[in-house]
Amino acid sequence: MPTIQDNLRVVLVSPRNPLNIGAVARAMRNFRFARLRLVNPYSVAYQEARSAVHATDILKNAEDFSTLAEAIADCNLVVGTTSLGHRELQHPIRSLQYGTRLIRQRLTSTPVALLFGSEKFGLSNDDLSYCHWLLRISTQGSMNLGQAAAVCLYEFTRQAAAKAKPEKRKPATAADLDRFTELLTEVLDRSGYVHSGGTAAKIRRLVRRLDLPAHDAEIWLGIMRQIQWKLGSSTSSRDRQ
Amino acid sequence: MPTIQDNLRVVLVSPRNPLNIGAVARAMRNFRFARLRLVNPYSVAYQEARSAVHATDILKNAEDFSTLAEAIADCNLVVGTTSLGHRELQHPIRSLQYGTRLIRQRLTSTPVALLFGSEKFGLSNDDLSYCHWLLRISTQGSMNLGQAAAVCLYEFTRQAAAKAKPEKRKPATAADLDRFTELLTEVLDRSGYVHSGGTAAKIRRLVRRLDLPAHDAEIWLGIMRQIQWKLGSSTSSRDRQ
Repeated sequence: MPTIQDNLRVVLVSPRNPLNIGAVARAMRNFRFARLRLVNPYSVAYQEARSAVHATDILKNAEDFSTLAEAIADCNLVVGTTSLGHRELQHPIRSLQYGTRLIRQRLTSTPVALLFGSEKFGLSNDDLSYCHWLLRISTQGSMNLGQAAAVCLYEFTRQAAAKAKPEKRKPATAADLDRFTELLTEVLDRSGYVHSGGTAAKIRRLVRRLDLPAHDAEIWLGIMRQIQWKLGSSTSSRDRQ
Repeated sequence: MPTIQDNLRVVLVSPRNPLNIGAVARAMRNFRFARLRLVNPYSVAYQEARSAVHATDILKNAEDFSTLAEAIADCNLVVGTTSLGHRELQHPIRSLQYGTRLIRQRLTSTPVALLFGSEKFGLSNDDLSYCHWLLRISTQGSMNLGQAAAVCLYEFTRQAAAKAKPEKRKPATAADLDRFTELLTEVLDRSGYVHSGGTAAKIRRLVRRLDLPAHDAEIWLGIMRQIQWKLGSSTSSRDRQ
């Protein structure tokens, strides 16, 4: 049976500094988490971090991906971290303490991705569009990456004593949400829905905020496929006129 | 009246690495502590850390002492930190959570010193002899100095703000959800979606489970109206054929 520690994927998006990658791996070891994923790491940094004498097994077993979508495909909940009030307030933002409690409930049954952005820029708007919500560490100024990871992982283990209630409903996978997003985008295009800029990311966020359970995701996929089919056939019949 | 933040003195004993000294200062800034003291720092490291471009005011205002006794002379409670079960068990050892609570009580009225040992050796037996008790962060393996400081200081501020914040997002009204349900039902009918009995109630529940915020409900209503309009116009064009 997978434990909470097995189900958490710590995902570093575009990390640049080998010391920071190493520091995150060390914090993971300290608090007994093992699954590290890197998205598009600055390759010199990554190789350097991996080959360091004191590199942990966590770092050696880290998986790397070229896109965020691939890195989180098996995760049912995707949470971004931020230490600042974010410029784009299109996501629910939860405190570290409350947010961690929600994540822990999910971790008892399904994989969850916890995203950390690059040292310099944090998570981009495109990265954020893959997130269901954001976890904010309330600080003055932005945190160092290794320290932010340590504080988050500490909060998970701190809460370990408090018994988490397992959540009953199983959330949709990121892959389901991607399919739904794709279908919805096509349906909107075909129906002439007028968007106002930055559409792809906006729709992705809109869908994530639905917080769909797996079973409902299937129903909604069926609904969208039917609408898509109908709009497709009707569009072509109109084209024929 | 001195606050808790003013009364805590973070004391680094014989730190060696300028990056670590800088990281501790940064964590202090993040969690709004200001009083940093260094005992017998490796002087090259210290000068380097202080002169760094991004050195915080905390670092610039740090006080240095040649002995631990001088650095803690004005403190009424001295607590050492350790991330390992310490070799010398002559001190009471308290968990981070419980220990921090005790320290916070003292901080309301008197200065308290929180000691961090050198990166390599931690606190020496001589250093420990100045401590009233020890604070242990329960980890696997020893922690990085900057990360240990961040976790401790986070725990102080976490306890200060332990009240859960109300959630910001405003949920959709029942009336919005009814309108959305109506529109969806019509769209499903027009697109020939096949339901299996008890449809109205099923769709109503499906929509409720989305748990829509008010702002998103409006977007989804717009989307559904557009699809409905498109299906309507195409249906009538087909009817005309």
